[in-house]
Amino acid sequence: MNEFSVTILGSSAAVPTSTRFPSAHIVSHQYKPFLVDCGEGTQIQLRKNQIRFSKIDHIFISHLHGDHFFGLIGLISSFNLLGRKKVLHIYAPEDIKQVLDVQLAVSKTQLNYQIKFHFLNFDSKELLYENNKLEVYSFPLKHSIPTCGFLFKEKPHPRKIKKAALKIYDIPDLAFEGIKNGLDFVNEVGDIVDNELLTIPGAAQKSYAYCSDTAYSESLKDYIKDINLLYHECSFMENMRSTAESKMHSTTLDAARVAVEVGAKQLIIGHFSARYKDLVPVLAETQTIFENTILASEDLKINI
Amino acid sequence: MNEFSVTILGSSAAVPTSTRFPSAHIVSHQYKPFLVDCGEGTQIQLRKNQIRFSKIDHIFISHLHGDHFFGLIGLISSFNLLGRKKVLHIYAPEDIKQVLDVQLAVSKTQLNYQIKFHFLNFDSKELLYENNKLEVYSFPLKHSIPTCGFLFKEKPHPRKIKKAALKIYDIPDLAFEGIKNGLDFVNEVGDIVDNELLTIPGAAQKSYAYCSDTAYSESLKDYIKDINLLYHECSFMENMRSTAESKMHSTTLDAARVAVEVGAKQLIIGHFSARYKDLVPVLAETQTIFENTILASEDLKINI
Repeated sequence: MNEFSVTILGSSAAVPTSTRFPSAHIVSHQYKPFLVDCGEGTQIQLRKNQIRFSKIDHIFISHLHGDHFFGLIGLISSFNLLGRKKVLHIYAPEDIKQVLDVQLAVSKTQLNYQIKFHFLNFDSKELLYENNKLEVYSFPLKHSIPTCGFLFKEKPHPRKIKKAALKIYDIPDLAFEGIKNGLDFVNEVGDIVDNELLTIPGAAQKSYAYCSDTAYSESLKDYIKDINLLYHECSFMENMRSTAESKMHSTTLDAARVAVEVGAKQLIIGHFSARYKDLVPVLAETQTIFENTILASEDLKINI
Repeated sequence: MNEFSVTILGSSAAVPTSTRFPSAHIVSHQYKPFLVDCGEGTQIQLRKNQIRFSKIDHIFISHLHGDHFFGLIGLISSFNLLGRKKVLHIYAPEDIKQVLDVQLAVSKTQLNYQIKFHFLNFDSKELLYENNKLEVYSFPLKHSIPTCGFLFKEKPHPRKIKKAALKIYDIPDLAFEGIKNGLDFVNEVGDIVDNELLTIPGAAQKSYAYCSDTAYSESLKDYIKDINLLYHECSFMENMRSTAESKMHSTTLDAARVAVEVGAKQLIIGHFSARYKDLVPVLAETQTIFENTILASEDLKINI
């Protein structure tokens, strides 16, 4: 079983509250943490959640509204103070570079490690990162400034060899890798055994999509589908639809509709306006359209 | 009795921990809050301590190391989102302006209120602000980049009129203000009554001085004296003196010596290195020289 989880570090919209931090998530796959957005206080939340700074090599910033990036300079500075040497990859809008450069310059900070910037493309879906088990894509959202969502998608898992087949066909260890990847087996006398007879499908590919901040966008279904867990922002309840639309944010029902349209198995809503002290009605309204919805909250960890 | 207090919002040195935020203090005088330094997460700490954003009109930034200013842009943005219209005064090193300008520009934020910058002078003591009861001064500290401390000092309190004098000399209401401010009383027939006969001294002038970050500086006694409460940084214990000196920070004993030299009544130490999980030995070492010492901790409020 592959480890694949999301930990919410901040669930607040623009203005934080005494209990809600601005946006930041840790997506962990095979115990490798990826940081998605980095609002003010992210490093404190990472500490609280015992996520080791030294394990973070990739940071994804969806857009340059302050509640999604004001914590980045602090984290980068702490990495430096803690002696980081290895490269840090930042996937973000191009202007992030000058935000960091100015603040490093005025504080007379010379980083002892390299930052490799990967600037986002806001026009189409794009592969940003891959390793042998995971791919990370950006895709365009619909907000007041250029904004991307991120899709974390497992690569196909290898097929599993049936125990019985091992005995029947006397398969040598050397052939395992090929068979798991779908090859037929050819034995010593040249008989071909069809892969279907030898294997069962591997675990299903799981996926997580992060959509914050965005107005309702019907294009999302072109970028993401059959998502195991969809995070969709939900800044407002339905009675504030006109405010949501003017600010290019989503309501409860917008988030729920997207969950239906992209075939999400589960929806997690977040980025709540500070006006909602009690989130029970926010959840209830979303569940009128998409029942398998949960509320984001600080330090909540969800296994995908 | 004048209200005069300090609330610690952050007690950590450069790298925050899961329980310690970077530097920020609220100095409150007559229920008017002044923010001193603004490390990352200050706005969240203000919320937790129920300090209303709208009451803050003056922010003092000691120097441009990130743990003292990374929270400023977030606070300024929140002020804006919450509809602030009135002027905000920022007393800080000159480069703070470009830090804010760049981040407001990339996030396409137009502030709906004015920021009036007052750039610090690092060569001499300077009056930054006064109202009819309080003066705030900056004074030079000794750190690796230009850094100021801040002195909050009450103006002389008016003298108090003796109850007995009111009866004996039949003083009209009109004359009270002058007598409280030290004038003699001249009665209807022209007799002069000496102020000393009419009044007793007003309450003592109280003061608070903030010294972070700094190496031990013998010049401090030239800038501040007879301080009711001295905050002095104490990044390290004595066995790390060489590290403290190379980074231009103070040890326990440095802080205690300054407290003695400036005639402080009480010392509060803070800006603790993240290496100190347990602060009891830090306090004990400081108290070997200056007994009336307390430890800074998040959300601690001290009445002066």
